Amino acid sequence: MALYVHGYQAREGERLHDQASTLADLLHAGTVYAEGNVVLEAGCAVGAQTVELASRSPAARFVSVDLSAASAALASRRAADAGLGNVSCAAADIFALPFGPRAFDHVFVCFVLEHLARPTAALAELRGLLRPGGTITVIEGDHGSAYFHPDSAAARAAISCQVALQAAAGGNALIGRELYPLLVKAGFAGVEVQPRQVYVDGSRPALLDGFTRKTFTAMIEGTRAAAIDAGLSTAAAFDAGIADLYRTAAPDGTFCYTFFKATARNA
Amino acid sequence: MALYVHGYQAREGERLHDQASTLADLLHAGTVYAEGNVVLEAGCAVGAQTVELASRSPAARFVSVDLSAASAALASRRAADAGLGNVSCAAADIFALPFGPRAFDHVFVCFVLEHLARPTAALAELRGLLRPGGTITVIEGDHGSAYFHPDSAAARAAISCQVALQAAAGGNALIGRELYPLLVKAGFAGVEVQPRQVYVDGSRPALLDGFTRKTFTAMIEGTRAAAIDAGLSTAAAFDAGIADLYRTAAPDGTFCYTFFKATARNA
Repeated sequence: MALYVHGYQAREGERLHDQASTLADLLHAGTVYAEGNVVLEAGCAVGAQTVELASRSPAARFVSVDLSAASAALASRRAADAGLGNVSCAAADIFALPFGPRAFDHVFVCFVLEHLARPTAALAELRGLLRPGGTITVIEGDHGSAYFHPDSAAARAAISCQVALQAAAGGNALIGRELYPLLVKAGFAGVEVQPRQVYVDGSRPALLDGFTRKTFTAMIEGTRAAAIDAGLSTAAAFDAGIADLYRTAAPDGTFCYTFFKATARNA
Repeated sequence: MALYVHGYQAREGERLHDQASTLADLLHAGTVYAEGNVVLEAGCAVGAQTVELASRSPAARFVSVDLSAASAALASRRAADAGLGNVSCAAADIFALPFGPRAFDHVFVCFVLEHLARPTAALAELRGLLRPGGTITVIEGDHGSAYFHPDSAAARAAISCQVALQAAAGGNALIGRELYPLLVKAGFAGVEVQPRQVYVDGSRPALLDGFTRKTFTAMIEGTRAAAIDAGLSTAAAFDAGIADLYRTAAPDGTFCYTFFKATARNA
Protein backbone atom coordinates (compact mmCIF):
# COMPACT_ATOMS: atom_id res chain seq x y z
CA MET A 1 0.00 0.00 0.00
CA ALA A 2 1.28 3.44 -0.86
CA LEU A 3 2.50 5.83 1.77
CA TYR A 4 -0.46 7.59 3.31
CA VAL A 5 0.24 11.16 2.24
CA HIS A 6 -2.11 12.82 4.69
CA GLY A 7 -0.17 11.44 7.66
CA TYR A 8 -1.23 9.56 10.75
CA GLN A 9 -0.92 12.30 13.37
CA ALA A 10 -3.57 12.96 15.97
CA ARG A 11 -4.44 16.29 14.35
CA GLU A 12 -5.01 14.40 11.13
CA GLY A 13 -7.42 12.15 12.99
CA GLU A 14 -9.38 15.21 14.10
CA ARG A 15 -9.41 16.61 10.60
CA LEU A 16 -10.82 13.38 9.23
CA HIS A 17 -13.44 13.42 11.95
CA ASP A 18 -14.52 17.01 11.13
CA GLN A 19 -14.64 16.07 7.47
CA ALA A 20 -16.76 13.03 8.17
CA SER A 21 -19.38 14.96 10.15
CA THR A 22 -19.74 17.68 7.52
CA LEU A 23 -19.82 15.31 4.60
CA ALA A 24 -21.47 12.24 6.02
CA ASP A 25 -24.83 12.73 4.36
CA LEU A 26 -23.33 13.70 1.03
CA LEU A 27 -21.11 10.62 0.93
CA HIS A 28 -23.27 7.99 2.62
CA ALA A 29 -26.74 8.75 1.27
CA GLY A 30 -28.03 5.66 -0.50
CA THR A 31 -25.70 3.17 1.19
CA VAL A 32 -27.73 0.86 3.41
CA TYR A 33 -26.97 -2.82 3.94
CA ALA A 34 -29.61 -5.42 4.74
CA GLU A 35 -29.99 -7.42 7.94
CA GLY A 36 -27.40 -10.16 8.27
CA ASN A 37 -25.21 -8.94 5.44
CA VAL A 38 -21.47 -9.03 6.03
CA VAL A 39 -19.58 -6.02 4.74
CA LEU A 40 -15.82 -5.61 4.34
CA GLU A 41 -14.59 -2.04 4.83
CA ALA A 42 -11.19 -2.10 3.18
CA GLY A 43 -8.95 0.70 4.46
CA CYS A 44 -10.90 2.06 7.40
CA ALA A 45 -8.17 4.46 8.61
CA VAL A 46 -9.15 5.85 12.03
CA GLY A 47 -12.79 4.89 11.58
CA ALA A 48 -14.40 8.15 10.51
CA GLN A 49 -16.45 6.41 7.80
CA THR A 50 -16.77 3.20 9.80
CA VAL A 51 -19.01 4.88 12.35
CA GLU A 52 -21.22 6.38 9.65
CA LEU A 53 -21.47 3.12 7.76
CA ALA A 54 -22.23 0.92 10.72
CA SER A 55 -24.72 3.28 12.34
CA ARG A 56 -26.66 3.58 9.06
CA SER A 57 -26.94 -0.22 8.72
CA PRO A 58 -27.36 -1.44 12.29
CA ALA A 59 -28.52 -4.92 11.26
CA ALA A 60 -25.51 -5.59 9.03
CA ARG A 61 -22.09 -6.72 10.28
CA PHE A 62 -18.89 -4.86 9.38
CA VAL A 63 -15.32 -6.11 9.17
CA SER A 64 -13.10 -3.05 8.94
CA VAL A 65 -9.41 -3.42 8.15
CA ASP A 66 -6.49 -1.05 7.76
CA LEU A 67 -2.82 -1.55 6.98
CA SER A 68 -1.94 0.42 10.12
CA ALA A 69 -2.56 -1.46 13.38
CA ALA A 70 -2.67 1.89 15.21
CA SER A 71 -5.40 3.16 12.90
CA ALA A 72 -7.38 -0.06 13.18
CA ALA A 73 -7.18 0.22 16.98
CA LEU A 74 -8.44 3.82 16.86
CA ALA A 75 -11.26 2.78 14.55
CA SER A 76 -12.21 -0.02 16.91
CA ARG A 77 -12.30 2.37 19.88
CA ARG A 78 -14.28 4.94 17.93
CA ALA A 79 -16.88 2.33 16.95
CA ALA A 80 -17.13 1.19 20.57
CA ASP A 81 -17.45 4.79 21.79
CA ALA A 82 -20.32 5.23 19.35
CA GLY A 83 -22.03 2.24 20.93
CA LEU A 84 -21.77 0.14 17.79
CA GLY A 85 -21.74 -3.60 18.39
CA ASN A 86 -21.68 -4.57 14.73
CA VAL A 87 -18.06 -3.70 13.85
CA SER A 88 -14.82 -5.65 14.19
CA CYS A 89 -11.56 -3.98 13.23
CA ALA A 90 -8.22 -5.56 12.35
CA ALA A 91 -4.87 -4.70 10.78
CA ALA A 92 -4.47 -6.20 7.30
CA ASP A 93 -2.96 -5.45 3.90
CA ILE A 94 -5.52 -4.96 1.15
CA PHE A 95 -3.33 -7.16 -1.09
CA ALA A 96 -3.12 -10.01 1.45
CA LEU A 97 -6.44 -10.07 3.23
CA PRO A 98 -7.00 -13.01 5.59
CA PHE A 99 -10.41 -13.97 4.20
CA GLY A 100 -11.54 -16.75 1.90
CA PRO A 101 -13.00 -16.14 -1.55
CA ARG A 102 -16.63 -15.01 -1.65
CA ALA A 103 -16.59 -14.30 2.08
CA PHE A 104 -18.50 -11.01 1.86
CA ASP A 105 -21.85 -9.76 0.67
CA HIS A 106 -20.50 -6.27 0.09
CA VAL A 107 -17.27 -4.31 0.06
CA PHE A 108 -16.93 -0.63 0.94
CA VAL A 109 -13.81 1.37 0.02
CA CYS A 110 -13.52 5.08 0.81
CA PHE A 111 -10.50 7.36 0.27
CA VAL A 112 -8.23 4.33 -0.23
CA LEU A 113 -7.62 3.83 -3.96
CA GLU A 114 -6.11 7.32 -4.18
CA HIS A 115 -3.15 5.99 -2.18
CA LEU A 116 -2.52 2.82 -4.18
CA ALA A 117 -0.04 2.37 -7.03
CA ARG A 118 -2.15 -0.50 -8.42
CA PRO A 119 -5.80 0.40 -7.88
CA THR A 120 -7.11 -1.97 -10.56
CA ALA A 121 -5.27 -4.90 -8.95
CA ALA A 122 -6.68 -3.93 -5.56
CA LEU A 123 -10.21 -3.81 -6.96
CA ALA A 124 -9.74 -7.21 -8.60
CA GLU A 125 -8.57 -8.65 -5.25
CA LEU A 126 -11.62 -7.22 -3.54
CA ARG A 127 -13.88 -8.63 -6.24
CA GLY A 128 -12.53 -12.08 -5.40
CA LEU A 129 -13.79 -11.65 -1.84
CA LEU A 130 -17.36 -10.91 -2.95
CA ARG A 131 -20.04 -13.54 -3.37
CA PRO A 132 -21.57 -13.63 -6.86
CA GLY A 133 -24.01 -10.74 -7.05
CA GLY A 134 -22.28 -8.97 -4.18
CA THR A 135 -21.60 -5.27 -4.58
CA ILE A 136 -18.74 -2.89 -4.10
CA THR A 137 -19.11 0.79 -3.19
CA VAL A 138 -16.15 3.06 -3.84
CA ILE A 139 -15.85 6.72 -2.81
CA GLU A 140 -12.92 8.90 -3.84
CA GLY A 141 -12.21 12.62 -4.13
CA ASP A 142 -10.52 14.37 -7.05
CA HIS A 143 -8.35 17.39 -6.33
CA GLY A 144 -8.63 18.50 -9.95
CA SER A 145 -12.31 19.12 -9.22
CA ALA A 146 -11.44 21.96 -6.83
CA TYR A 147 -12.07 25.49 -8.08
CA PHE A 148 -13.06 28.62 -6.29
CA HIS A 149 -13.70 32.33 -6.26
CA PRO A 150 -11.63 34.44 -6.11
CA ASP A 151 -9.56 32.31 -8.45
CA SER A 152 -5.86 32.25 -7.54
CA ALA A 153 -2.83 30.83 -9.35
CA ALA A 154 -1.04 30.56 -5.97
CA ALA A 155 -3.87 28.51 -4.51
CA ARG A 156 -3.95 26.25 -7.55
CA ALA A 157 -0.19 25.77 -7.25
CA ALA A 158 -0.49 24.78 -3.57
CA ILE A 159 -3.09 22.16 -4.51
CA SER A 160 -0.80 20.92 -7.28
CA CYS A 161 1.91 20.30 -4.66
CA GLN A 162 -0.41 17.87 -2.89
CA VAL A 163 -1.20 16.15 -6.20
CA ALA A 164 2.52 15.86 -6.99
CA LEU A 165 3.38 14.51 -3.51
CA GLN A 166 0.66 11.90 -3.75
CA ALA A 167 1.86 10.90 -7.25
CA ALA A 168 5.45 10.66 -5.99
CA ALA A 169 4.20 8.32 -3.26
CA GLY A 170 2.60 6.12 -5.91
CA GLY A 171 -0.95 7.44 -5.46
CA ASN A 172 -3.32 9.54 -7.53
CA ALA A 173 -5.16 12.53 -6.07
CA LEU A 174 -7.16 12.85 -9.31
CA ILE A 175 -8.61 9.34 -9.15
CA GLY A 176 -12.28 10.25 -8.66
CA ARG A 177 -12.86 10.92 -12.36
CA GLU A 178 -11.34 7.51 -13.14
CA LEU A 179 -13.55 5.21 -11.07
CA TYR A 180 -15.69 4.07 -13.99
CA PRO A 181 -12.87 2.70 -16.18
CA LEU A 182 -11.03 1.28 -13.14
CA LEU A 183 -14.04 -0.76 -12.01
CA VAL A 184 -14.74 -1.95 -15.55
CA LYS A 185 -11.10 -3.02 -15.96
CA ALA A 186 -11.22 -4.85 -12.64
CA GLY A 187 -14.01 -7.02 -14.01
CA PHE A 188 -17.04 -5.54 -12.25
CA ALA A 189 -20.47 -5.40 -13.90
CA GLY A 190 -23.17 -2.75 -13.67
CA VAL A 191 -20.75 0.06 -12.84
CA GLU A 192 -22.58 3.27 -11.92
CA VAL A 193 -20.80 6.45 -10.90
CA GLN A 194 -22.41 9.42 -9.20
CA PRO A 195 -20.51 12.66 -8.78
CA ARG A 196 -21.39 14.20 -5.41
CA GLN A 197 -20.42 17.81 -5.49
CA VAL A 198 -19.81 20.10 -2.54
CA TYR A 199 -20.69 23.69 -3.41
CA VAL A 200 -20.00 26.38 -0.84
CA ASP A 201 -21.01 30.04 -0.86
CA GLY A 202 -21.86 32.76 1.65
CA SER A 203 -25.34 31.32 2.20
CA ARG A 204 -23.83 28.11 3.61
CA PRO A 205 -21.69 29.16 6.60
CA ALA A 206 -21.44 25.63 8.02
CA LEU A 207 -19.75 24.48 4.83
CA LEU A 208 -17.54 27.58 4.61
CA ASP A 209 -16.15 26.52 7.93
CA GLY A 210 -16.56 22.75 7.87
CA PHE A 211 -15.49 22.10 4.32
CA THR A 212 -13.58 25.00 2.75
CA ARG A 213 -11.58 25.85 5.86
CA LYS A 214 -11.40 22.77 8.04
CA THR A 215 -11.46 20.01 5.46
CA PHE A 216 -9.98 21.04 2.14
CA THR A 217 -7.70 23.95 3.04
CA ALA A 218 -6.52 22.26 6.24
CA MET A 219 -5.65 19.14 4.23
CA ILE A 220 -3.58 21.12 1.72
CA GLU A 221 -1.99 23.15 4.53
CA GLY A 222 -0.97 19.86 6.16
CA THR A 223 1.36 19.10 3.25
CA ARG A 224 3.32 22.37 3.69
CA ALA A 225 6.54 20.90 5.08
CA ALA A 226 6.57 17.99 2.63
CA ALA A 227 5.93 20.29 -0.34
CA ILE A 228 8.74 22.65 0.65
CA ASP A 229 11.13 19.77 1.50
CA ALA A 230 10.43 18.22 -1.90
CA GLY A 231 11.26 21.51 -3.63
CA LEU A 232 7.75 21.77 -5.06
CA SER A 233 7.20 25.23 -3.54
CA THR A 234 8.76 27.87 -1.34
CA ALA A 235 7.43 28.81 2.08
CA ALA A 236 6.31 32.20 0.76
CA ALA A 237 4.59 30.83 -2.33
CA PHE A 238 2.91 28.01 -0.44
CA ASP A 239 1.68 30.32 2.31
CA ALA A 240 0.29 32.74 -0.27
CA GLY A 241 -1.66 29.87 -1.81
CA ILE A 242 -3.04 28.81 1.57
CA ALA A 243 -4.04 32.40 2.38
CA ASP A 244 -5.88 32.57 -0.93
CA LEU A 245 -7.69 29.31 -0.17
CA TYR A 246 -8.84 30.70 3.19
CA ARG A 247 -9.92 33.84 1.32
CA THR A 248 -12.43 31.75 -0.64
CA ALA A 249 -14.23 31.05 2.66
CA ALA A 250 -15.17 34.74 3.08
CA PRO A 251 -18.88 35.53 2.62
CA ASP A 252 -18.32 36.60 -1.01
CA GLY A 253 -16.15 33.60 -1.87
CA THR A 254 -17.21 30.26 -3.34
CA PHE A 255 -15.66 26.79 -3.37
CA CYS A 256 -16.41 23.64 -5.38
CA TYR A 257 -15.18 20.10 -4.93
CA THR A 258 -16.53 16.80 -6.23
CA PHE A 259 -16.44 13.37 -4.64
CA PHE A 260 -17.23 10.38 -6.83
CA LYS A 261 -19.30 7.49 -5.51
CA ALA A 262 -19.36 4.30 -7.57
CA THR A 263 -21.27 1.07 -7.14
CA ALA A 264 -20.71 -2.14 -9.08
CA ARG A 265 -21.50 -5.84 -8.94
CA ASN A 266 -19.47 -9.03 -8.96
CA ALA A 267 -21.39 -10.69 -11.79
CA MET B 1 -22.15 44.12 -24.66
CA ALA B 2 -18.95 42.18 -25.12
CA LEU B 3 -18.05 40.55 -28.38
CA TYR B 4 -19.76 37.17 -28.60
CA VAL B 5 -16.74 34.87 -28.65
CA HIS B 6 -18.55 31.79 -29.90
CA GLY B 7 -19.48 33.53 -33.15
CA TYR B 8 -22.74 33.91 -35.00
CA GLN B 9 -22.24 31.47 -37.88
CA ALA B 10 -24.87 28.97 -38.95
CA ARG B 11 -22.75 26.06 -37.67
CA GLU B 12 -22.71 27.76 -34.30
CA GLY B 13 -26.49 27.87 -34.42
CA GLU B 14 -26.55 24.11 -34.94
CA ARG B 15 -24.10 23.54 -32.11
CA LEU B 16 -26.24 25.56 -29.73
CA HIS B 17 -29.28 23.58 -30.84
CA ASP B 18 -27.54 20.22 -30.19
CA GLN B 19 -26.39 21.51 -26.82
CA ALA B 20 -29.89 22.61 -25.91
CA SER B 21 -31.45 19.22 -26.68
CA THR B 22 -28.87 17.29 -24.65
CA LEU B 23 -28.87 19.65 -21.73
CA ALA B 24 -32.41 20.96 -21.66
CA ASP B 25 -33.56 18.90 -18.70
CA LEU B 26 -30.39 19.55 -16.71
CA LEU B 27 -30.64 23.31 -17.18
CA HIS B 28 -34.39 23.91 -17.15
CA ALA B 29 -35.60 21.54 -14.47
CA GLY B 30 -37.38 23.57 -11.81
CA THR B 31 -38.07 26.63 -13.97
CA VAL B 32 -41.81 26.96 -14.53
CA TYR B 33 -43.66 30.29 -14.74
CA ALA B 34 -47.28 30.72 -13.73
CA GLU B 35 -50.21 31.58 -15.97
CA GLY B 36 -50.21 35.19 -17.06
CA ASN B 37 -46.69 35.95 -15.86
CA VAL B 38 -44.55 38.06 -18.16
CA VAL B 39 -40.94 36.94 -18.43
CA LEU B 40 -38.02 38.82 -19.97
CA GLU B 41 -35.39 36.58 -21.55
CA ALA B 42 -32.37 38.85 -21.76
CA GLY B 43 -29.89 37.67 -24.39
CA CYS B 44 -31.82 34.97 -26.24
CA ALA B 45 -29.20 34.41 -28.97
CA VAL B 46 -30.71 32.19 -31.69
CA GLY B 47 -33.47 30.95 -29.40
CA ALA B 48 -32.17 27.58 -28.24
CA GLN B 49 -33.22 28.23 -24.63
CA THR B 50 -36.24 30.32 -25.67
CA VAL B 51 -37.99 27.27 -27.08
CA GLU B 52 -37.30 25.23 -23.94
CA LEU B 53 -38.43 28.02 -21.65
CA ALA B 54 -41.62 28.87 -23.48
CA SER B 55 -42.70 25.28 -24.07
CA ARG B 56 -42.25 24.46 -20.37
CA SER B 57 -44.43 27.41 -19.30
CA PRO B 58 -47.13 27.58 -21.99
CA ALA B 59 -49.39 29.89 -19.96
CA ALA B 60 -46.70 32.52 -19.36
CA ARG B 61 -45.68 35.16 -21.90
CA PHE B 62 -42.04 35.66 -22.96
CA VAL B 63 -40.29 38.72 -24.28
CA SER B 64 -36.94 37.56 -25.66
CA VAL B 65 -34.33 40.11 -26.68
CA ASP B 66 -30.83 39.93 -28.14
CA LEU B 67 -28.29 42.57 -29.13
CA SER B 68 -28.09 40.99 -32.60
CA ALA B 69 -31.14 41.60 -34.80
CA ALA B 70 -30.17 38.55 -36.89
CA SER B 71 -30.16 36.35 -33.79
CA ALA B 72 -33.47 37.76 -32.55
CA ALA B 73 -34.99 37.03 -35.98
CA LEU B 74 -33.71 33.44 -35.86
CA ALA B 75 -35.07 33.03 -32.33
CA SER B 76 -38.43 34.35 -33.48
CA ARG B 77 -38.55 31.89 -36.37
CA ARG B 78 -37.47 29.02 -34.16
CA ALA B 79 -40.24 29.79 -31.65
CA ALA B 80 -42.80 29.98 -34.48
CA ASP B 81 -41.52 26.70 -35.98
CA ALA B 82 -42.01 25.09 -32.57
CA GLY B 83 -45.63 26.25 -32.60
CA LEU B 84 -45.14 28.60 -29.67
CA GLY B 85 -47.53 31.51 -29.58
CA ASN B 86 -46.30 32.95 -26.28
CA VAL B 87 -42.98 34.46 -27.41
CA SER B 88 -42.09 37.83 -28.92
CA CYS B 89 -38.51 38.51 -29.93
CA ALA B 90 -36.75 41.82 -30.51
CA ALA B 91 -33.29 43.31 -30.91
CA ALA B 92 -32.20 45.30 -27.85
CA ASP B 93 -29.15 46.12 -25.76
CA ILE B 94 -29.25 44.71 -22.24
CA PHE B 95 -27.97 48.10 -21.00
CA ALA B 96 -30.68 50.10 -22.82
CA LEU B 97 -33.78 47.95 -22.75
CA PRO B 98 -36.95 49.61 -24.04
CA PHE B 99 -39.10 48.67 -21.03
CA GLY B 100 -40.35 50.63 -18.06
CA PRO B 101 -39.32 49.86 -14.49
CA ARG B 102 -41.04 46.90 -12.84
CA ALA B 103 -42.40 45.74 -16.21
CA PHE B 104 -41.69 42.04 -15.64
CA ASP B 105 -42.65 39.30 -13.21
CA HIS B 106 -39.47 37.36 -13.95
CA VAL B 107 -36.18 37.65 -15.78
CA PHE B 108 -34.28 34.75 -17.32
CA VAL B 109 -30.62 35.06 -18.35
CA CYS B 110 -28.69 32.13 -19.78
CA PHE B 111 -25.11 32.09 -21.13
CA VAL B 112 -25.08 35.90 -21.29
CA LEU B 113 -23.18 37.27 -18.27
CA GLU B 114 -20.07 35.35 -19.39
CA HIS B 115 -19.81 37.79 -22.32
CA LEU B 116 -20.24 41.02 -20.36
CA ALA B 117 -17.50 43.27 -19.03
CA ARG B 118 -19.87 44.60 -16.34
CA PRO B 119 -22.04 41.70 -15.21
CA THR B 120 -22.99 43.31 -11.89
CA ALA B 121 -24.20 46.45 -13.68
CA ALA B 122 -26.22 44.32 -16.09
CA LEU B 123 -27.83 42.44 -13.21
CA ALA B 124 -28.66 45.70 -11.45
CA GLU B 125 -30.31 46.97 -14.68
CA LEU B 126 -32.36 43.80 -14.91
CA ARG B 127 -33.37 44.10 -11.27
CA GLY B 128 -34.84 47.50 -12.07
CA LEU B 129 -37.15 45.84 -14.61
CA LEU B 130 -38.58 43.41 -12.05
CA ARG B 131 -41.67 44.04 -9.98
CA PRO B 132 -41.06 43.82 -6.22
CA GLY B 133 -40.94 40.12 -5.36
CA GLY B 134 -40.17 39.21 -8.97
CA THR B 135 -37.41 36.69 -9.56
CA ILE B 136 -34.36 36.34 -11.74
CA THR B 137 -32.95 33.03 -12.95
CA VAL B 138 -29.37 32.99 -14.19
CA ILE B 139 -27.57 30.06 -15.81
CA GLU B 140 -23.88 30.14 -16.70
CA GLY B 141 -21.14 27.61 -17.38
CA ASP B 142 -17.62 27.64 -15.97
CA HIS B 143 -14.78 26.32 -18.12
CA GLY B 144 -12.61 25.86 -15.05
CA SER B 145 -15.06 23.15 -14.02
CA ALA B 146 -14.00 20.96 -16.97
CA TYR B 147 -11.81 17.97 -16.17
CA PHE B 148 -11.56 14.59 -17.76
CA HIS B 149 -9.87 11.24 -18.08
CA PRO B 150 -7.36 10.70 -19.55
CA ASP B 151 -6.06 13.98 -18.17
CA SER B 152 -4.06 15.99 -20.71
CA ALA B 153 -1.99 19.15 -20.37
CA ALA B 154 -2.56 19.85 -24.09
CA ALA B 155 -6.33 19.65 -23.66
CA ARG B 156 -6.22 21.91 -20.62
CA ALA B 157 -4.11 24.39 -22.62
CA ALA B 158 -6.65 24.41 -25.47
CA ILE B 159 -9.42 25.19 -22.99
CA SER B 160 -7.28 27.96 -21.49
CA CYS B 161 -7.08 29.57 -24.95
CA GLN B 162 -10.86 29.92 -24.97
CA VAL B 163 -10.79 31.39 -21.46
CA ALA B 164 -8.09 33.87 -22.51
CA LEU B 165 -9.95 34.87 -25.69
CA GLN B 166 -13.14 35.47 -23.75
CA ALA B 167 -11.24 37.53 -21.14
CA ALA B 168 -9.59 39.57 -23.92
CA ALA B 169 -13.06 40.29 -25.29
CA GLY B 170 -14.13 41.58 -21.87
CA GLY B 171 -15.95 38.42 -20.77
CA ASN B 172 -15.35 35.71 -18.20
CA ALA B 173 -15.56 32.01 -19.07
CA LEU B 174 -15.16 31.14 -15.38
CA ILE B 175 -18.20 33.12 -14.25
CA GLY B 176 -20.36 30.21 -13.07
CA ARG B 177 -18.61 29.95 -9.70
CA GLU B 178 -19.16 33.68 -9.20
CA LEU B 179 -22.94 33.93 -9.55
CA TYR B 180 -23.62 34.09 -5.82
CA PRO B 181 -21.48 37.18 -5.06
CA LEU B 182 -22.51 38.86 -8.33
CA LEU B 183 -26.23 38.61 -7.52
CA VAL B 184 -25.67 39.74 -3.94
CA LYS B 185 -23.65 42.74 -5.15
CA ALA B 186 -26.39 43.62 -7.67
CA GLY B 187 -28.83 43.97 -4.77
CA PHE B 188 -30.84 40.78 -5.09
CA ALA B 189 -32.26 38.96 -2.05
CA GLY B 190 -32.65 35.26 -1.40
CA VAL B 191 -29.84 34.24 -3.72
CA GLU B 192 -29.67 30.47 -4.18
CA VAL B 193 -27.16 28.77 -6.43
CA GLN B 194 -27.34 25.17 -7.60
CA PRO B 195 -24.43 23.59 -9.41
CA ARG B 196 -25.75 21.30 -12.16
CA GLN B 197 -23.01 18.96 -13.15
CA VAL B 198 -22.71 16.98 -16.35
CA TYR B 199 -20.83 13.74 -15.77
CA VAL B 200 -20.06 11.54 -18.76
CA ASP B 201 -18.64 8.03 -18.85
CA GLY B 202 -18.86 4.94 -21.07
CA SER B 203 -22.25 4.03 -19.64
CA ARG B 204 -23.76 7.24 -21.04
CA PRO B 205 -23.16 7.13 -24.83
CA ALA B 206 -25.70 9.87 -25.60
CA LEU B 207 -23.69 12.28 -23.45
CA LEU B 208 -20.34 11.09 -24.83
CA ASP B 209 -21.61 12.19 -28.20
CA GLY B 210 -24.01 14.99 -27.33
CA PHE B 211 -21.97 16.70 -24.67
CA THR B 212 -18.27 15.73 -24.70
CA ARG B 213 -17.94 15.67 -28.49
CA LYS B 214 -20.64 17.90 -29.94
CA THR B 215 -21.02 20.51 -27.25
CA PHE B 216 -17.84 21.06 -25.26
CA THR B 217 -15.09 19.88 -27.60
CA ALA B 218 -16.81 21.39 -30.66
CA MET B 219 -17.05 24.72 -28.82
CA ILE B 220 -13.33 24.72 -27.95
CA GLU B 221 -12.47 23.55 -31.49
CA GLY B 222 -14.45 26.51 -32.83
CA THR B 223 -11.93 28.93 -31.31
CA ARG B 224 -8.95 27.34 -33.16
CA ALA B 225 -8.33 30.15 -35.66
CA ALA B 226 -8.80 32.90 -33.09
CA ALA B 227 -6.48 31.17 -30.60
CA ILE B 228 -3.72 30.71 -33.18
CA ASP B 229 -4.18 34.25 -34.58
CA ALA B 230 -3.91 35.66 -31.07
CA GLY B 231 -0.65 33.77 -30.51
CA LEU B 232 -2.17 31.79 -27.63
CA SER B 233 -1.28 28.45 -29.24
CA THR B 234 0.22 26.87 -32.34
CA ALA B 235 -1.76 24.78 -34.80
CA ALA B 236 0.05 21.63 -33.69
CA ALA B 237 -0.40 22.25 -29.97
CA PHE B 238 -4.03 23.24 -30.33
CA ASP B 239 -4.87 20.24 -32.51
CA ALA B 240 -3.17 17.92 -30.01
CA GLY B 241 -5.37 19.36 -27.28
CA ILE B 242 -8.51 18.87 -29.34
CA ALA B 243 -7.51 15.29 -30.17
CA ASP B 244 -7.06 14.64 -26.45
CA LEU B 245 -10.50 16.11 -25.71
CA TYR B 246 -12.09 13.79 -28.29
CA ARG B 247 -10.11 10.94 -26.69
CA THR B 248 -12.04 11.52 -23.44
CA ALA B 249 -15.22 10.51 -25.31
CA ALA B 250 -13.95 6.93 -25.82
CA PRO B 251 -15.76 4.26 -23.77
CA ASP B 252 -13.03 4.31 -21.09
CA GLY B 253 -12.88 8.11 -20.90
CA THR B 254 -14.78 10.43 -18.58
CA PHE B 255 -15.71 14.10 -18.72
CA CYS B 256 -17.05 16.53 -16.11
CA TYR B 257 -18.47 20.02 -16.52
CA THR B 258 -20.63 22.11 -14.21
CA PHE B 259 -23.30 24.67 -15.05
CA PHE B 260 -24.47 27.00 -12.29
CA LYS B 261 -28.13 27.91 -11.95
CA ALA B 262 -29.01 30.77 -9.63
CA THR B 263 -32.33 32.21 -8.55
CA ALA B 264 -32.87 35.42 -6.61
CA ARG B 265 -35.56 37.94 -5.75
CA ASN B 266 -36.03 41.66 -6.19
CA ALA B 267 -36.90 42.36 -2.56
